[in-house]
Amino acid sequence: MDRHQLHDLIRAFLREDIGRGDLTSEAIFTDDQIGMARLVARESCVVAGAEAVAAEVFRVQNPQITPSRAVADGSRVNPGTVLLAVQGPVADLLKAERLALNLLQRLAGIATLTARFVERVQGYPVRITDTRKTTPGLRVLEKYAVRVGGGANHRFNLTDGVLIKDNHIAACGSISEAVARVRRVVPHTIRVEVETDTLEQVRESLACGVDIIMLDNMAPAMMAEAVRMVAGRALVEASGGVNLESVAEIAATGVDIISVGALTHSAPACDIGMDWDGHEVDVDPPA
Amino acid sequence: MDRHQLHDLIRAFLREDIGRGDLTSEAIFTDDQIGMARLVARESCVVAGAEAVAAEVFRVQNPQITPSRAVADGSRVNPGTVLLAVQGPVADLLKAERLALNLLQRLAGIATLTARFVERVQGYPVRITDTRKTTPGLRVLEKYAVRVGGGANHRFNLTDGVLIKDNHIAACGSISEAVARVRRVVPHTIRVEVETDTLEQVRESLACGVDIIMLDNMAPAMMAEAVRMVAGRALVEASGGVNLESVAEIAATGVDIISVGALTHSAPACDIGMDWDGHEVDVDPPA
Amino acid sequence: MDRHQLHDLIRAFLREDIGRGDLTSEAIFTDDQIGMARLVARESCVVAGAEAVAAEVFRVQNPQITPSRAVADGSRVNPGTVLLAVQGPVADLLKAERLALNLLQRLAGIATLTARFVERVQGYPVRITDTRKTTPGLRVLEKYAVRVGGGANHRFNLTDGVLIKDNHIAACGSISEAVARVRRVVPHTIRVEVETDTLEQVRESLACGVDIIMLDNMAPAMMAEAVRMVAGRALVEASGGVNLESVAEIAATGVDIISVGALTHSAPACDIGMDWDGHEVDVDPPA
Amino acid sequence: MDRHQLHDLIRAFLREDIGRGDLTSEAIFTDDQIGMARLVARESCVVAGAEAVAAEVFRVQNPQITPSRAVADGSRVNPGTVLLAVQGPVADLLKAERLALNLLQRLAGIATLTARFVERVQGYPVRITDTRKTTPGLRVLEKYAVRVGGGANHRFNLTDGVLIKDNHIAACGSISEAVARVRRVVPHTIRVEVETDTLEQVRESLACGVDIIMLDNMAPAMMAEAVRMVAGRALVEASGGVNLESVAEIAATGVDIISVGALTHSAPACDIGMDWDGHEVDVDPPA
Amino acid sequence: MDRHQLHDLIRAFLREDIGRGDLTSEAIFTDDQIGMARLVARESCVVAGAEAVAAEVFRVQNPQITPSRAVADGSRVNPGTVLLAVQGPVADLLKAERLALNLLQRLAGIATLTARFVERVQGYPVRITDTRKTTPGLRVLEKYAVRVGGGANHRFNLTDGVLIKDNHIAACGSISEAVARVRRVVPHTIRVEVETDTLEQVRESLACGVDIIMLDNMAPAMMAEAVRMVAGRALVEASGGVNLESVAEIAATGVDIISVGALTHSAPACDIGMDWDGHEVDVDPPA
Amino acid sequence: MDRHQLHDLIRAFLREDIGRGDLTSEAIFTDDQIGMARLVARESCVVAGAEAVAAEVFRVQNPQITPSRAVADGSRVNPGTVLLAVQGPVADLLKAERLALNLLQRLAGIATLTARFVERVQGYPVRITDTRKTTPGLRVLEKYAVRVGGGANHRFNLTDGVLIKDNHIAACGSISEAVARVRRVVPHTIRVEVETDTLEQVRESLACGVDIIMLDNMAPAMMAEAVRMVAGRALVEASGGVNLESVAEIAATGVDIISVGALTHSAPACDIGMDWDGHEVDVDPPA
Repeated sequence: MDRHQLHDLIRAFLREDIGRGDLTSEAIFTDDQIGMARLVARESCVVAGAEAVAAEVFRVQNPQITPSRAVADGSRVNPGTVLLAVQGPVADLLKAERLALNLLQRLAGIATLTARFVERVQGYPVRITDTRKTTPGLRVLEKYAVRVGGGANHRFNLTDGVLIKDNHIAACGSISEAVARVRRVVPHTIRVEVETDTLEQVRESLACGVDIIMLDNMAPAMMAEAVRMVAGRALVEASGGVNLESVAEIAATGVDIISVGALTHSAPACDIGMDWDGHEVDVDPPA
Repeated sequence: MDRHQLHDLIRAFLREDIGRGDLTSEAIFTDDQIGMARLVARESCVVAGAEAVAAEVFRVQNPQITPSRAVADGSRVNPGTVLLAVQGPVADLLKAERLALNLLQRLAGIATLTARFVERVQGYPVRITDTRKTTPGLRVLEKYAVRVGGGANHRFNLTDGVLIKDNHIAACGSISEAVARVRRVVPHTIRVEVETDTLEQVRESLACGVDIIMLDNMAPAMMAEAVRMVAGRALVEASGGVNLESVAEIAATGVDIISVGALTHSAPACDIGMDWDGHEVDVDPPA
Repeated sequence: MDRHQLHDLIRAFLREDIGRGDLTSEAIFTDDQIGMARLVARESCVVAGAEAVAAEVFRVQNPQITPSRAVADGSRVNPGTVLLAVQGPVADLLKAERLALNLLQRLAGIATLTARFVERVQGYPVRITDTRKTTPGLRVLEKYAVRVGGGANHRFNLTDGVLIKDNHIAACGSISEAVARVRRVVPHTIRVEVETDTLEQVRESLACGVDIIMLDNMAPAMMAEAVRMVAGRALVEASGGVNLESVAEIAATGVDIISVGALTHSAPACDIGMDWDGHEVDVDPPA
Repeated sequence: MDRHQLHDLIRAFLREDIGRGDLTSEAIFTDDQIGMARLVARESCVVAGAEAVAAEVFRVQNPQITPSRAVADGSRVNPGTVLLAVQGPVADLLKAERLALNLLQRLAGIATLTARFVERVQGYPVRITDTRKTTPGLRVLEKYAVRVGGGANHRFNLTDGVLIKDNHIAACGSISEAVARVRRVVPHTIRVEVETDTLEQVRESLACGVDIIMLDNMAPAMMAEAVRMVAGRALVEASGGVNLESVAEIAATGVDIISVGALTHSAPACDIGMDWDGHEVDVDPPA
Repeated sequence: MDRHQLHDLIRAFLREDIGRGDLTSEAIFTDDQIGMARLVARESCVVAGAEAVAAEVFRVQNPQITPSRAVADGSRVNPGTVLLAVQGPVADLLKAERLALNLLQRLAGIATLTARFVERVQGYPVRITDTRKTTPGLRVLEKYAVRVGGGANHRFNLTDGVLIKDNHIAACGSISEAVARVRRVVPHTIRVEVETDTLEQVRESLACGVDIIMLDNMAPAMMAEAVRMVAGRALVEASGGVNLESVAEIAATGVDIISVGALTHSAPACDIGMDWDGHEVDVDPPA
Repeated sequence: MDRHQLHDLIRAFLREDIGRGDLTSEAIFTDDQIGMARLVARESCVVAGAEAVAAEVFRVQNPQITPSRAVADGSRVNPGTVLLAVQGPVADLLKAERLALNLLQRLAGIATLTARFVERVQGYPVRITDTRKTTPGLRVLEKYAVRVGGGANHRFNLTDGVLIKDNHIAACGSISEAVARVRRVVPHTIRVEVETDTLEQVRESLACGVDIIMLDNMAPAMMAEAVRMVAGRALVEASGGVNLESVAEIAATGVDIISVGALTHSAPACDIGMDWDGHEVDVDPPA
C-alpha cells in the first residue's frame, strides 16, 4: 500500500465521519487533555491492519497521537488481546475511533475468513484468491487483508489482467479468435485467462495456448477431468460458489487456484472495541 | 443525494475497478457493438438504488447507455424480477457491470434488512435508525438505503449531531456540566443527546433539559422504567445489541427511537445478477 | 476548524495570490535572508484568527516561518497592539503577507461587529446568531469568527438544519402538512424550524409541535405577543432587518435567538497592517 | 473567465452551502414541481454577473433550470429591475438561490462602486484599477466586476506583474540594483514597477528605466511634481488612501493609473432579492 | 484510454497553457465569431491521436467546436495531408491550438518511429515494445501511440508487471530465491520476468521457471545462444541500446520481444501545423 | 517553483509510474534494508534540477531518503560527475529512480541546449527565450531549465502576456484597431506585442505604440532593417526557425530577444544514469 494513497483515503474517510469537526468533543476537551485507549479483540481473529491501517488513521487525524503495541499482521489472537494502544489528545482519539474500528473490524474479518479457507486446503498445492467482488473504494485494503490471511490476489482491476468470458467468446465466434485478438494488444507481461463451462472449451483453450483456464461452476469430478486434460500446460482456476464446505473437495481435484468471492463480499466483521483508560484524562475544566 | 457528489463517487469507484481500461473487452469489442442486459433479483428483496445508483453507474460510464425498466426504490420484489435493463456499447456495459452490482446488492441488502426490523415493530410509534457504523466512503449511500427500507437516519457525522458519551461526562465531572458546555457552542438547530447507562443518569439528563436520552445497552425492563421517568419530556433512544429477535420487545418499552448498527454493518448483500441478451450483439468482427 | 481542511483552503488561497511564484521577491531574496515582521492592529477590535488562521497561513507557506506572540481569539485590543509576530525567510513572509492580512482583517471585523451586537443585548437571555449570508468559500472561517465575537452559529448548511419557508408551506398547503413531511425524513437529532409572518402562523406552528419558530420581519410588539403565545413550548427566533439600533428592543421581546445577516455580510474589515523590522534583514547581495 | 474554472468554483460553493442536500426542500418537493422566480434589484446599481455568474450557478445546480432575461453586464438599473429570471425544479431553485444572490450582490456592489470612481475622473486620461486586496477565493470574479464597472485590472497575482517595494529596495541597497536583479529574470513581456515615497526615488527609478512608477501615499502637489519629472518616460500610478472625495484631485495631477483597494475590499453589497412567482408551483402533494 | 481520465488530463493541460484566459483573443473576438482551421502534416508520418486526442482537446475547450475529417490512427500520410479540421468560435480554436498541436506532434512522432522499428523487423515473429522511459504525465498517451505505430506495450507501471533486476537478485543471494519470494505474493495473472546479464543467469532463470527472460545489453551472438538455451520454455526479451541500425540483427537472434526506450524518450516530434481559413471569420467589429 | 505545486506534480508522476506499489521490490526488500546510489552524468552537460527536482522526487517518495552532494544548477559537468547521491530504503530508491532520472535528463537537456544558444550570441545584448512549445504538464519545470541554462522566459501562458497575431489583425481590420482593443482591457503591467511579417507592419506597429514587435520568420537583412526602423522605440523579438547555425547572425541584426521553440521541444535528453553501491545493502533475508 502506497503511503500517499493510503493517507488520501484515510483523510477522505475521516472527513466523511467527522464533517467539519466533532461538535461534542470540541465543546468539552481542550487540545492538551491527553487520553489513552486500547483497541481490543472481543473474539478470536487473524489481525490485519492494526499497524498498517488503524495506527495510520490515528496518525493522520493528529500526528501527536502515539500508537504503540500494534499486533503484527497475520497474528492469530484470542479475545481480550490488545491489538493497538493509542495515546494523545482525547478529542482526536474520539474523532479517529469510529473509522479505525470500522476498518480494522472489516480487514480482520477478511483475513480471518481467508485463513479459514486456507486451512481447509492445507497440504494441497493450491492458492486461495480473491475476486473483484470487493467493497467500492476499499479494494486496495481488502486485497491486502486477503494476503495477510494467507490468500493471494487475483487481478486488481480490468487493466492488469485478462479474463475472456462468454460475452467475449460469443462476440468473436470462437475462443481461438478471442484469444488471438487479445494477444495482439495485451502486454506480454500479463497472462491470458479464459472462462470455460465445458470440457470442450477447456480443450479449445488449451489448443490456442491460453495461460490460465478458469473452470466456472463445474462439479468436482468435471474439474478433476479438466485438470487431467490440461496436464500442467496451463494454470487451472476453479471459480463459482466456493464455500468452506466445498473448498477441500475442490482443492483435491488438483486445480492450481481457487478464487472465492466470499472472502471479501461475505466476511463478517470481527468484533473489536476500544477501551478507554480514564485515569489518564486531565479532568481540569478548560479555561 | 447530490448529483455532482454521486457522480464524483461513481467515477472514483469506476476508476478503481477499471483502472486505465478493460484490456479484454477493448481488444474484442468496437464502440458500435451494442448489447442489452438485465439486472435481475435472484432472491426476494427490497430494492434500493436501481434507478438512483445502478442506472447512474451505467450513465456515468457512458452517456450512450440507456437504462430502463428501473424498479422503484422500496419495492418488494420476488426472485427473477428485472430491476433494471441497460442497453449500450457492450464494452461499457461490461466495465460498469461489477460496480453496479456491487452497489445494488449492498444497498438492497441494507434496505431489506431495515424493512425486516421495521416490520417487527409495526404498530409501535417508534423509528428504527442507523448509526455511524457504515462502510467508509459509502455512508451517504448506505443511509439512503436505510430510508428506502423504511428506517430513519441518525446523525450523519460528528458535526451535525451531539452525543455526549461517558468520556465526555467523565471529563466534565457531571452530565450537567457537559451539557452546559455543549449548549454554549452548539447551534440551536441541533438537539443535544446524552448516552446513559443508569436510571440515575437518565434522571440527571432530564434535570438539565437534554433533548434526547440514549439508553445504552439497558435491559427492556429498565428501558421501560426510563421511559416512564422521562414521560415525554425528551426523546428516548434505545441503543446497543439490538437484533431482529429483541427489537419488538424493545419497541414495547415505549422508546421513541431504536438505533441499530447491524442495519449497515451486518446486512447480507442481496443476490442480484446480470443476465445478457446475446442476440443483440453484432458478431461481425471489428475491422 | 479541521486542520486538514484549513490547510487545503489556505493552500488554494495562497495559490490564487502567488500564482507560480513571486517574480519580484524571488529575483531579489535568497532563501537564507531572514526577516521579522509584526501584524499590528491600526484600530480597536476583537481579535479572531491570529493564531488559528493568520499564523497557519505563514506556516503553510513555509514551515520554517516561526509565528509568535499571537493574541488570543476574543481579546479586545487597542490600536498599536501586535497581534502576531513572524520570523522567517523574507520572500515567504512577503508571499504570505497579503493573504494573512486579508483573512485576519475580515475575521476580526466579524468578531468585532458580533461583539457589538452581543453587548447591546447584555442581560437578556438571548443568543445572537449568524445566517447563511456568508462569503462563498469562507463560511467555516466566518462562522468561527462569529463564535469568537460571542455569538452563536445558526445551521451551517441546508443539510444540518431544517427551515420551512413560505415556498414550502405554499407547496404543502399548510404548515402542519409541511412539518409532517419533513419530520418523516429528518434525523431526530435535528430540530424543525418554521418561518412565520403572522401570529396565526405562529399558532399553527405551535399546534404541530415545531421546535423553533422564526418570526420573520415582525415588529417588536408583535414579536412580544408571539413570545407570550409560545410560552416556552418552542424556541423563538427573531430574523430580518436586525441592526445595532434595533437589536436591544428585539431582545427585550423575550425571543431566544436573534439571527443577524449583517454579522457576516456587512462587517467592515478591521484595519490591520504588517510592520517590518528591517534590521533583521541580511543585505548581502545573493551570490 | 474560463468556463471549466468557473464551474469548479461554483460547484465548491454550492457544496459549501448545500452540504449533502437540502433536508427541507427534498422532503417537500418532488423533482417535477416547477417554479419560477426573478432576481430583482432593490436599489440602483451597475449589474455585474447576472448572466455570467448567477445564471451559471443555477445551470450548474441543475441543467434543467432555464435562466432568461439576464440584464447585460455594465447596465445601470433602477430599483425593481428584473436582473434574471429562472425557471425549473423548485428544490433546485431554492438550493441555488443563496449562492446566486451572495455572488451577484457582491459583484454588482463592486461594479457599482467602480463606476462611481470612474465617473469622478471622467475627462481625465486615467485608468482606475483594483489591487490584490480581494476576497480570498473570489479574485477572478471580483476583478471581472471591476472591469464591468469601467475600471481596469492591476496584476492578478505575484507572478504576472513586478512591484518593487521598500523591502526589496532595502535588501538591494538601491533601486537600480533591485531593478537590475529583477530585469535579469523577468520575462520581457512584463513591465517593471517600483513603489516610491519620495521624488528622489522617482528620479532614481527614472534613471534606471523602470516602466511604471508608483507614487505611494503622496500628496497631490507632490504627485503633480512627480508627473512633470517623469514627463511621459514611464507610466505613473497613484496609490494609497484613494477615496471618492480625493480621486478627482489625484486624477488632475496627470497620473496615468489610480489603484484603489476599496473597489474590492470595501464595496457594499447591492441589495438584490429573489421574488417567487407562486402560481407556477404545482401544489399536488408528491406521490 | 478512459474518457473521464483523458478529459481530466486535457483540462489540466489547457489550464496550464491558457491560465485564466487568453488576454489577446478575448479582447478581440466575441463568442459568435466563427472560424475554421485545419491541422496539416508538414512531413510524412504515421498519424496517432487526431481523433482520439487532438479532436478531444478542441471539444473539451468548447463543446461547440466541431472537429471533422480526422485521419484514422495508424494511417501513413504525406506532407500536406489534413489530419483534422475544426470549426467553432475563433477564440476557443486559438486557445486549444497549441495543446492540440503539442500532443499530436508528439504522438505522431512516437507512432512514426515505432513504425520504422516495426518495419525493420518485418518477417520476424517478434514484438517491439516500449519501456517506462516515457514523459512524466503522458504515459497513457505515449503507450497508446506505440500501439498505433504497430508496437506493443511493456508493463505500464511497477504494479502490473514484475521485473527482477540485479539489485533484487543481490539482496536475495540468488535468482531462485528472488523468484520464490516474488511468486509468493504476485497475482497468478502476472508473468515473472528476470533481467539477466550472462548465460549462467539465463540458465538459473530457466531452472526456476521464470516466465520471461530479459537479455540485458547482450551481443547478438550471445542472445542467439540464450534463445537456443531457452528453447521456448520462456519468453525472451532483448533490451538495452536498441536502435534502428541494430534492431533487425537482434530480431534475427530469435528473441520474442525487443524493448526500445527510444520509442518514447527520443522520438522527434512530427511537424504538424494549423492552417486557418480566414474567409470564414466574421470581421465585423464586436459590439 | 512553488513547493506545494512541485510536490503535487511529483506525487502525480510517482503515482503514474508506481501504480499501487512496486510488486517486485516490495516482495523482496523490507523497509529497513538501506541502500545508496548516485545519479551520474554519462556525458557533458549543464545541470538543471539535481537539488530542486530530482532530490525532491526522492524526498516525496519517502522522507527518510537523504539526498546529498547535489550539483548546483547551472554547473557544467563532465562525464562521470556525481550529480546527486541518495541514501535510504532500497525499495523506495527503486520506486523513485525512474522518475528522478526522466526529469533530470530532460531538464539538463534543456539547460544544456539553452546554454549552447546563449554561447553563440555571447557579446550581443540579446536574450534567448523559450516559447509555449513545451511538454504538456511540464511547462513550469522546462521554463525553469531554460533560465538555468542562461536563457530567459517568454510569457508563461495566454493570460500573462499579449501577442497579437495575424488572426487577430485580420479580425480587426488593422494593427492599430487590434492594439486599441487589447489596450483597453489588458493590465498596464503587461506589455503588448505584435507579430509582424513585413516592414510595413513593423511601421504600423510602431505608429500605434506597441511595446514589443515580433519579426516572424524574416530574413536577417530584413530584421536589421526593422531594427533600424524601430530605433529603440520598442523591443524587437526575432522568432521562427532559429537554430544553432542561424542564431548568431540573427543576434547580429540588433534584435533584443530571440525566441527559440527548439529549446524545449527539441532538446535531446542528457544521458544520466543511477549507479548503485551494493555493499550498503543488508542482504539478510527478510523475516
